[in-house]
Amino acid sequence: MSIKGVVYKGAHEVAVEDVPEPELQNPTDVVIDVTSTCICGSDLHMYEGRTAADEGIVFGHEAMGVVEEVGEGVDSLDVGDRVSIPFNVACGHCKNCEQGKTGFCLNVNPDGGVPAGGAYGYVGMGPYQGGQAEKMRVPYADFNALKLPDEGHEDDFAMLADIFPTGWHGTELADLQPGESVAIFGAGPVGLMAAYSAKIKGASEIYVVDRVPSRLDLAEEHCDATPINFEEGNPVEQIIDANGGEVNKGVDAVGYQSVEPDEDRDDDEPYDPTKENPGVLINQLIRVVEPKGKLGIIGLYVPEDPGAPETISEMEAAGRLGIDFGKLFEKGQALATGQCDVKSYNRYLRDLIVAGRAEPSFVVSHRESLADAPEMYQKFDDREEGVTKVILEP
Amino acid sequence: MSIKGVVYKGAHEVAVEDVPEPELQNPTDVVIDVTSTCICGSDLHMYEGRTAADEGIVFGHEAMGVVEEVGEGVDSLDVGDRVSIPFNVACGHCKNCEQGKTGFCLNVNPDGGVPAGGAYGYVGMGPYQGGQAEKMRVPYADFNALKLPDEGHEDDFAMLADIFPTGWHGTELADLQPGESVAIFGAGPVGLMAAYSAKIKGASEIYVVDRVPSRLDLAEEHCDATPINFEEGNPVEQIIDANGGEVNKGVDAVGYQSVEPDEDRDDDEPYDPTKENPGVLINQLIRVVEPKGKLGIIGLYVPEDPGAPETISEMEAAGRLGIDFGKLFEKGQALATGQCDVKSYNRYLRDLIVAGRAEPSFVVSHRESLADAPEMYQKFDDREEGVTKVILEP
Amino acid sequence: MSIKGVVYKGAHEVAVEDVPEPELQNPTDVVIDVTSTCICGSDLHMYEGRTAADEGIVFGHEAMGVVEEVGEGVDSLDVGDRVSIPFNVACGHCKNCEQGKTGFCLNVNPDGGVPAGGAYGYVGMGPYQGGQAEKMRVPYADFNALKLPDEGHEDDFAMLADIFPTGWHGTELADLQPGESVAIFGAGPVGLMAAYSAKIKGASEIYVVDRVPSRLDLAEEHCDATPINFEEGNPVEQIIDANGGEVNKGVDAVGYQSVEPDEDRDDDEPYDPTKENPGVLINQLIRVVEPKGKLGIIGLYVPEDPGAPETISEMEAAGRLGIDFGKLFEKGQALATGQCDVKSYNRYLRDLIVAGRAEPSFVVSHRESLADAPEMYQKFDDREEGVTKVILEP
Amino acid sequence: MSIKGVVYKGAHEVAVEDVPEPELQNPTDVVIDVTSTCICGSDLHMYEGRTAADEGIVFGHEAMGVVEEVGEGVDSLDVGDRVSIPFNVACGHCKNCEQGKTGFCLNVNPDGGVPAGGAYGYVGMGPYQGGQAEKMRVPYADFNALKLPDEGHEDDFAMLADIFPTGWHGTELADLQPGESVAIFGAGPVGLMAAYSAKIKGASEIYVVDRVPSRLDLAEEHCDATPINFEEGNPVEQIIDANGGEVNKGVDAVGYQSVEPDEDRDDDEPYDPTKENPGVLINQLIRVVEPKGKLGIIGLYVPEDPGAPETISEMEAAGRLGIDFGKLFEKGQALATGQCDVKSYNRYLRDLIVAGRAEPSFVVSHRESLADAPEMYQKFDDREEGVTKVILEP
Repeated sequence: MSIKGVVYKGAHEVAVEDVPEPELQNPTDVVIDVTSTCICGSDLHMYEGRTAADEGIVFGHEAMGVVEEVGEGVDSLDVGDRVSIPFNVACGHCKNCEQGKTGFCLNVNPDGGVPAGGAYGYVGMGPYQGGQAEKMRVPYADFNALKLPDEGHEDDFAMLADIFPTGWHGTELADLQPGESVAIFGAGPVGLMAAYSAKIKGASEIYVVDRVPSRLDLAEEHCDATPINFEEGNPVEQIIDANGGEVNKGVDAVGYQSVEPDEDRDDDEPYDPTKENPGVLINQLIRVVEPKGKLGIIGLYVPEDPGAPETISEMEAAGRLGIDFGKLFEKGQALATGQCDVKSYNRYLRDLIVAGRAEPSFVVSHRESLADAPEMYQKFDDREEGVTKVILEP
Repeated sequence: MSIKGVVYKGAHEVAVEDVPEPELQNPTDVVIDVTSTCICGSDLHMYEGRTAADEGIVFGHEAMGVVEEVGEGVDSLDVGDRVSIPFNVACGHCKNCEQGKTGFCLNVNPDGGVPAGGAYGYVGMGPYQGGQAEKMRVPYADFNALKLPDEGHEDDFAMLADIFPTGWHGTELADLQPGESVAIFGAGPVGLMAAYSAKIKGASEIYVVDRVPSRLDLAEEHCDATPINFEEGNPVEQIIDANGGEVNKGVDAVGYQSVEPDEDRDDDEPYDPTKENPGVLINQLIRVVEPKGKLGIIGLYVPEDPGAPETISEMEAAGRLGIDFGKLFEKGQALATGQCDVKSYNRYLRDLIVAGRAEPSFVVSHRESLADAPEMYQKFDDREEGVTKVILEP
Repeated sequence: MSIKGVVYKGAHEVAVEDVPEPELQNPTDVVIDVTSTCICGSDLHMYEGRTAADEGIVFGHEAMGVVEEVGEGVDSLDVGDRVSIPFNVACGHCKNCEQGKTGFCLNVNPDGGVPAGGAYGYVGMGPYQGGQAEKMRVPYADFNALKLPDEGHEDDFAMLADIFPTGWHGTELADLQPGESVAIFGAGPVGLMAAYSAKIKGASEIYVVDRVPSRLDLAEEHCDATPINFEEGNPVEQIIDANGGEVNKGVDAVGYQSVEPDEDRDDDEPYDPTKENPGVLINQLIRVVEPKGKLGIIGLYVPEDPGAPETISEMEAAGRLGIDFGKLFEKGQALATGQCDVKSYNRYLRDLIVAGRAEPSFVVSHRESLADAPEMYQKFDDREEGVTKVILEP
Repeated sequence: MSIKGVVYKGAHEVAVEDVPEPELQNPTDVVIDVTSTCICGSDLHMYEGRTAADEGIVFGHEAMGVVEEVGEGVDSLDVGDRVSIPFNVACGHCKNCEQGKTGFCLNVNPDGGVPAGGAYGYVGMGPYQGGQAEKMRVPYADFNALKLPDEGHEDDFAMLADIFPTGWHGTELADLQPGESVAIFGAGPVGLMAAYSAKIKGASEIYVVDRVPSRLDLAEEHCDATPINFEEGNPVEQIIDANGGEVNKGVDAVGYQSVEPDEDRDDDEPYDPTKENPGVLINQLIRVVEPKGKLGIIGLYVPEDPGAPETISEMEAAGRLGIDFGKLFEKGQALATGQCDVKSYNRYLRDLIVAGRAEPSFVVSHRESLADAPEMYQKFDDREEGVTKVILEP
């Protein structure tokens, strides 16, 4: 038996093909019918060939749907339940899971490429077939599936698998408190969700840095943020000017593929808007955040970047970046990093959606058929103006 | 009027000379008679000419003594009170002070070299004459002076101005909890105090890394720590072997003047035990601490190292270090840095000393006359075997 | 020299009379010209003769104004600075102040009636002349005065001395987190500020209990709260019905003068809407909050109630209330109590006002001349419909 | 098939009888061979007939043993693994469990007598056969069972199911920090464990209140505590005298069956050392703890006490106690209550035992055969001098 799924065919190519139909493998599994499944910015790392992903992998870790089959060891789920599935696969009973560190489960990925943690449809994150498909198997389903109301808010709830919790996580890692000011680098879907989280939490001032006008517009309109276009001048200086001084907290929602600002180029070379500089954002955050301030790092950094462009040094391609540690120490700052533990937040974010106090679907620009995946991957990867977040509908 | 004080005369030279007698300058000042004053490892940065310190500065930021003169705006102190003076000068009413961030006071050092914070007798930390002298002026005395019992524990209390709180701060920055394991790099006075703090807090396993046997012996004897000599093998591997896996938390009590381990040299060059490698400890900590673990960085890192040896790159001398940020992110770790906010801890550490539950003076190897300062600076700077911590007695 | 001030003349009587002009008494004092000063619900306890307040006391602990005179030991304030003065008087350097517990200062009220803490113009809270007057002396002014922008938001900033921070404190004591539901008992000014704080912090559902329709309307309109009129049915049941179960957290913004709900009367007696029942709210909170939930108690409870009505038992008049402790324990709940430490919050609440994200002045129903104090006290004490919060203007 | 177990036969009577042999009921179960199982102070509430427990119930919730049979949905356990079983039964995937509140699981006891939470062998805590038996079924075994080293520390590990974590919980509920002073009421096994936890955490001063000399001796010898015999004078005054003032934190390790101190009796009646006064300890804690201090309540309080002695009022028997709420509020104190969430602590306490830093078995006075249960219940219930903690060996 087979279902349709989005399959990686090599750098910059995906196809919708027949893949094996998911089945119950353990008594604690369920299988869901996927109703909404998103393309994530982190899928693009694989799509662009910047990872060790092999051809044939089924993509997709942002899925929601309806329970179709239930293992006999499952307690709390029934056929027909509508659920959101966190991108992390987590066992629920290891030391990390029991402390809420579900992004770093010690059991689900023993031979994977990472020190801890698993995910659906992602290289190095374990043997879990992706959710850009008609069906998906969910292990440890009692623990992993979050129940949703039977109807409504489909697009909002689709944000619960990854980007809304991940944006929220950025503000948690930065320990953002009500009344504080925050600078958020990156206005992609995750950066926008971080800004939106900051608004919900009662931040006093929110600065969002990007260079794509439509994304900055969303930040201003939906997050009450002050947009900072880094092509119009040094973002650190723009923020300090606007804020009357350094901000309390900072969030990096870009990661290692950040681009070098115009002002940092040598005078004798033309500005190259695609030139990457993997440490630049961290150092900008160190400068823009006040002494004793905290930095939340949710943008991806990797210990190996096999497809790094030539302008990246060997050291940088091995994940060793030039960080202004002397300045960081002098300012007594702290930073916290890592992928989101979705289960720490998704229950409460769901409740905010149900109560009508959060509508994260403002980032959704497209809802397309699963069959359109190849085209949508290409447009999203091109950062085509107006393509912010894509939901696929199997 | 003049008093005797320890005066910096240029690289590797101090002298005991006449310096101006401290006087009340503001209604909130007191002047104390110094009874004990220590040489700090951070004084050596100035002593070695590795900072921008000018000749003529009076050293000393670890002082205790007896109140001799009291300003009319001072409430809680009387002549004759025995007090410990935190190395930080703090106003008590700025945003940072009122939140306990007294190491980063916004008022005491407006034109200093650092973003925030002041200290006695230290370059760039404001105009506060040092405490390696017969007397010292204490600004904002109600806030800064900690009252001590009239008698007893002189050597233990002498540790309250800096190193005991600073070691404790390392375990706080790492968020060390009872029952956890911790790796502490550096067995100088501050590293030993960090290990001692870990013991008091109920750590399950404490690993202390150094290469000076007498210091490792102190760690084992007084802190119940497992000594790790990094000249006998890779310290990360030694710890992981002994612990049966990565530790929960880590503390860096060395800083930018850390030396490169033998094993990291190229095979074709002889081992140079003085070769510095300013980022090596951070990267070792990233490796030895578990996913989601935390690193407390109390060893000094500087944004400018004017006297850096030739083996240090220009980038490193500007405080930009090669940090394994990809690995840090992949492990979802957090790190916190900066000098200690002494007042956050000294009250409770005093109470532990009074109750007989802490005797931090085990690190004290010498109590000498103030006149012996030049000799003791030289011995301490040479890391002479058996010279751990020096108290000077004016 | 004298100024005009609101003087207590005995139960249910105040007068505007000449009182001594405040002067600098210590180098750390300032004197301010009061521009706005509010009547507080807690003033009514004195006004009604329910405390040991002597005739002649000048009322008022919610003052803001402009600095008129500055002691020579004051650092950070200049003549002409606009400031908000927290109702707590705090020294800034005792153990409690340095930990942010400024409502429980150990120095300002050594012979007062309370275990710790001082306030302006309040019985048992120390010798500090009240702020319902043309001028007010502010001790420890660097620590106590909060600087405001020179212009604008006068009514909003007038809420910073007490009720906005106190309402916020309720949500802090209950440890309210974004996405959680909360029940707030009492829609007086403080209850409304608690509900408004809950909204700012991102609560998912906010229930506000009272019986005055105009107050419940304010809660609904400005705080997005669900109004619960306890005269229309058991408030616990109403909330559980509306919420689909117990709420996560609860706040008591009423205190010991809470009235017995209709449904609790014996069938054979007529309902008396003024009958007090000092423990009823705590027990309702225990029932309406979920297991492991937390209760924030900011409504006043007193260890002595000399003017208690006859229906109050002797035990209750001595502050010993019948609390459902067995139920509290079985549900594993926690509760936290006490007057607000204003300085813990006022800086950030000010910033929210400046940023346009908070407008707490929606509770202000009246801005009157100081001379109108007697009339306004009477109306406020009568809970006259439409009299929510009164600002007096000297 | 049957095994031997301790069966409740009515007030003050138990018998060792044949009971059904536990079997796997769900794929997530295991069955263990019990090697050590303790009598708990809370068993005595049932034993004395003070609860609604029916005859026939198998007692025992403090069990450890070796895995004998493993369900097919269990991941992490194998036959032969040595495990400690927390007294709480918890599902691992409800809202409370995923937040670590395993004592208040929402799934394991839907029709039980309590709002949330389950336990083995206890009235109202769900249908889980007790562990004072040769074998025990463990539901949700991956989540509930804690792996132990194969050998050693049998008596120490036997304390991990309940009393060591519960004592620790008391210090957590009181938020006890290193360097603080603490008063602990009750030197039964749980009180001793609380005192021992305070020592491990680095408390500066520990006061333990009881009237049984042998228990106070254990507190002094093993916990470095100051013993306070409440028959020798008012314990509040004794502690304040010894400490030079109120303590920072307090723990109630007695609960509703606390006895009235001699000094509280009316002068015209003889002292009755068995007279209960269910609120007395809470009110003593309010007095002995400083303003803003915190109280951890781990002693049991119940909402219904069907077997209450005649001296207990009807209101008290319904769990409504006279609490000095006015004083509590005036001091701005907080209190936290409830049974222990064992899994929050047992992993780290195990590691302290393994590391040789904790030996909680100092409370064990007897290790007897399961067959001796009737005799040991009687001796323990009589608080016979020298009977502190009893381990039964099936």
